Amino acid sequence: MKKVIIIGHGPAGISAAIYLKRAGIDPLVIGKDHGALEGYDDLVENFYGQEKPLEGVTLIQNGIKQARGLGIEVVSDAVISLETHEKGFTVKTANHVYESKTVLLATGKKRETLNRPGFNKYRGKGISMCAVCDGFFYRKKKIAIVGCGAYMLHELNHLKRMTKDLMVFTDGHPLDADIDVPVVHDKIKKFSGEEKISHIETKDHSYEVDGVFIALGTPSSVEFASQLGVIVEKGNLVVDKNYQTNIEGLFAAGDIIGGKLQIAKAVYDGMMAADAMYDYLKKKK
Amino acid sequence: MKKVIIIGHGPAGISAAIYLKRAGIDPLVIGKDHGALEGYDDLVENFYGQEKPLEGVTLIQNGIKQARGLGIEVVSDAVISLETHEKGFTVKTANHVYESKTVLLATGKKRETLNRPGFNKYRGKGISMCAVCDGFFYRKKKIAIVGCGAYMLHELNHLKRMTKDLMVFTDGHPLDADIDVPVVHDKIKKFSGEEKISHIETKDHSYEVDGVFIALGTPSSVEFASQLGVIVEKGNLVVDKNYQTNIEGLFAAGDIIGGKLQIAKAVYDGMMAADAMYDYLKKKK
Repeated sequence: MKKVIIIGHGPAGISAAIYLKRAGIDPLVIGKDHGALEGYDDLVENFYGQEKPLEGVTLIQNGIKQARGLGIEVVSDAVISLETHEKGFTVKTANHVYESKTVLLATGKKRETLNRPGFNKYRGKGISMCAVCDGFFYRKKKIAIVGCGAYMLHELNHLKRMTKDLMVFTDGHPLDADIDVPVVHDKIKKFSGEEKISHIETKDHSYEVDGVFIALGTPSSVEFASQLGVIVEKGNLVVDKNYQTNIEGLFAAGDIIGGKLQIAKAVYDGMMAADAMYDYLKKKK
Repeated sequence: MKKVIIIGHGPAGISAAIYLKRAGIDPLVIGKDHGALEGYDDLVENFYGQEKPLEGVTLIQNGIKQARGLGIEVVSDAVISLETHEKGFTVKTANHVYESKTVLLATGKKRETLNRPGFNKYRGKGISMCAVCDGFFYRKKKIAIVGCGAYMLHELNHLKRMTKDLMVFTDGHPLDADIDVPVVHDKIKKFSGEEKISHIETKDHSYEVDGVFIALGTPSSVEFASQLGVIVEKGNLVVDKNYQTNIEGLFAAGDIIGGKLQIAKAVYDGMMAADAMYDYLKKKK
């Protein structure tokens, strides 16, 4: 059982890890490749201490090396789900199951979405990003899940409780899972419908759907936090002044809590959240 | 007449300068050599984004190069006095007189050291200037803190997490705080030991120590800010949520306003103060 698991290896997560390590706690940092800053096209110029502008990927890598240099364990993996129990949290990745007393969500704001006609139009009107949150509204209806890996499986398993009428769309990606529902491998061309979504269209076919769940890549904190009942406002996890969500022992920092979406704030958040988590763990002894 | 003069070329000042420049305002940064971080003996390890630990002086220099690389004017000079008038502020240095609508004080908390036998010998070998950075290495050990005011209290509060075996040495200064650990009022004659420090010696007594944390001194900008009638509490300039002091147009950020005395906070403060100063200047047009 760990004391702290930090999900996210960017500025907020690594800054928190460093400060926790300095306070005598050994955090585990789990981060996946291609997070928000790594997808950032421009150079990082405004964050103090970088003599010359640098790529987001480079800064992220430097931060991870910095943490490892201080003896902090940083693993490369993608978190699929987060569950609570009496003693803390179960964090499941594609490859492992971890247990921890506390968790810090520091995954930033990257969302894998689909740049297709109709996607934005039907978000909230048949297209959802979270099966656990919205599956209920599609009980006994015709559901499509868009994805191809562990996260898709996770969503599929949940949606099987809701309906038997399921299909998976891999959007042209190789299917990285064994599943027992119909699979469409073709790329999705558009989402169509009237007020609400009614069809997914590929090059050669039009498929009726009532609901579409996007499970591309891996979930952002908002998705698996929502599963736990974390209060979310306008896509941000809501935290108190101690960076704690409404779920005890679950903290959040950086872009995921909104506010000024800058590295300097994420680094500051990470430092302050580390302090708060230290205090929390001390009280819980 | 400038729009912004920033006094201090450290993390808070440079971070503010960068964000002001990005907002379309050309600040002038005036910094003196041998500020707080430049007097910091140990390596900077905890501030995000630095792949390897580095010297404070190096980080400061990198920050100045970063600012100049973005076209920001950073001059090396020492501010002697600050005066207000109808239109703003007169900033006098050893060599120039400048006029500005607003001023940001970001001069940090210069650390005063002790000119006693053994002080230099044991720096980094039991004598530290930063409790948050190094306290971890003295967990459950015997720690002495040298100081007598607000800064000593700040360090003491952090070190209480690490050990119960604490003593304060005021080095002959009056104790300006209520504390609940043993206090030695006598002046320190020397620091002694073998490879590492083992004792603090006064005229009449020799005290065993494992680690010594130096927390003397108060920042110099407090002196010239006080002359203006800036409200100061326990050696910190008091600011509102917009980083503005009680003097209109006079802002402050970083260690000088107290709070967590870490680079990450100073950088965050600088960014947020820049936003506030931009808004202030926009309203004043």
